[in-house]
Amino acid sequence: MKIFQKEVKLKSRERGFHLITEEIISQFSEIKNIEIGFLQVFIKHTSAGLTINENADPTVREDFETHFDKMVPENQSNYKHTLEGPDDMPAHIKSSLTGSSVLIPVTNGKLNLGTWQGIYLCEHRNHGGARKVVITAYGN
Amino acid sequence: MKIFQKEVKLKSRERGFHLITEEIISQFSEIKNIEIGFLQVFIKHTSAGLTINENADPTVREDFETHFDKMVPENQSNYKHTLEGPDDMPAHIKSSLTGSSVLIPVTNGKLNLGTWQGIYLCEHRNHGGARKVVITAYGN
Amino acid sequence: MKIFQKEVKLKSRERGFHLITEEIISQFSEIKNIEIGFLQVFIKHTSAGLTINENADPTVREDFETHFDKMVPENQSNYKHTLEGPDDMPAHIKSSLTGSSVLIPVTNGKLNLGTWQGIYLCEHRNHGGARKVVITAYGN
Repeated sequence: MKIFQKEVKLKSRERGFHLITEEIISQFSEIKNIEIGFLQVFIKHTSAGLTINENADPTVREDFETHFDKMVPENQSNYKHTLEGPDDMPAHIKSSLTGSSVLIPVTNGKLNLGTWQGIYLCEHRNHGGARKVVITAYGN
Repeated sequence: MKIFQKEVKLKSRERGFHLITEEIISQFSEIKNIEIGFLQVFIKHTSAGLTINENADPTVREDFETHFDKMVPENQSNYKHTLEGPDDMPAHIKSSLTGSSVLIPVTNGKLNLGTWQGIYLCEHRNHGGARKVVITAYGN
Repeated sequence: MKIFQKEVKLKSRERGFHLITEEIISQFSEIKNIEIGFLQVFIKHTSAGLTINENADPTVREDFETHFDKMVPENQSNYKHTLEGPDDMPAHIKSSLTGSSVLIPVTNGKLNLGTWQGIYLCEHRNHGGARKVVITAYGN
């Protein structure tokens, strides 16, 4: 089995849902060496997540942010973990709702995504900074 | 490492949560060649998802649909991405809540699922059509 | 490719979110043999899930429980699957929101988690009992 792994810092992004497919691929040319296999992106944080969704209309990403803020609101009186600010505890919960990694099939050296699919960084903190991800590709 | 990959069109299903374990397995006999490893099913769409849940009582799947419709309602005045119909933006959000793939351990040529576990196709569009999935099995 | 797989019974835990990183690692020393690869933990149940989140302040785990109970409430009049008690159907839905497995990169024989990341068992039943997980490590 071939396996390639790299830790990468994504550029800092504001709170919201962001398309990062190109940033991932451009930093990981090793994927070309995999005929059949997978690429995993794993985020090493607990207040930002990853998911796969629509790669075209930016309003999809805006509506994601709107809905997540409604589904996991800030300043709930029953939150106990409030020391790090009102955006912190909701950020933890939101991260677990999408999850901290994506695992994408690779076919002939390329991500085998659907036409409309892209990788999202889900940044749930107001000032999350540059997020670290571990990128691993493996296969034959 | 052995690795087998196939792109398959699932039969068209109505909106809701559907058990597809048998449809997946019946189209992928290659799994028998894996003694220890994994099967991944990855859906190439952004308005339908995959998850693992109860494989017996059909009312579980009905209650999933009821709850997801309540948790991510249609026709919210703050949605901007509305051009493709009221079921579209909620479908994107719902898809990311379950995720677009499942990764199941394989033991002795078979899915190592719990007694009550099955693979669900979560069809969130009113007319989603036949959904494409990439099925990959790998291991020794 | 090296691959190691083991089925393990986690000790019984009360309803809520629980940190199980140490329990997993201590039962799976095989991970030391993997230089670059992955560890997957897969839960063989449909009313408990797994996720990765904050490993330090216990109030994070309490707030997770509070929020999940609010996001997927019990005793909804529109639930049909009620025979196994009011905590059962919500438990199925909550399990699919976090998912039934985590896939963590391994680097130099260790889980390559972020400083604040740990593995959570999300126990959604009042009396879930000892949960079975399949642990698989693979890589070079």
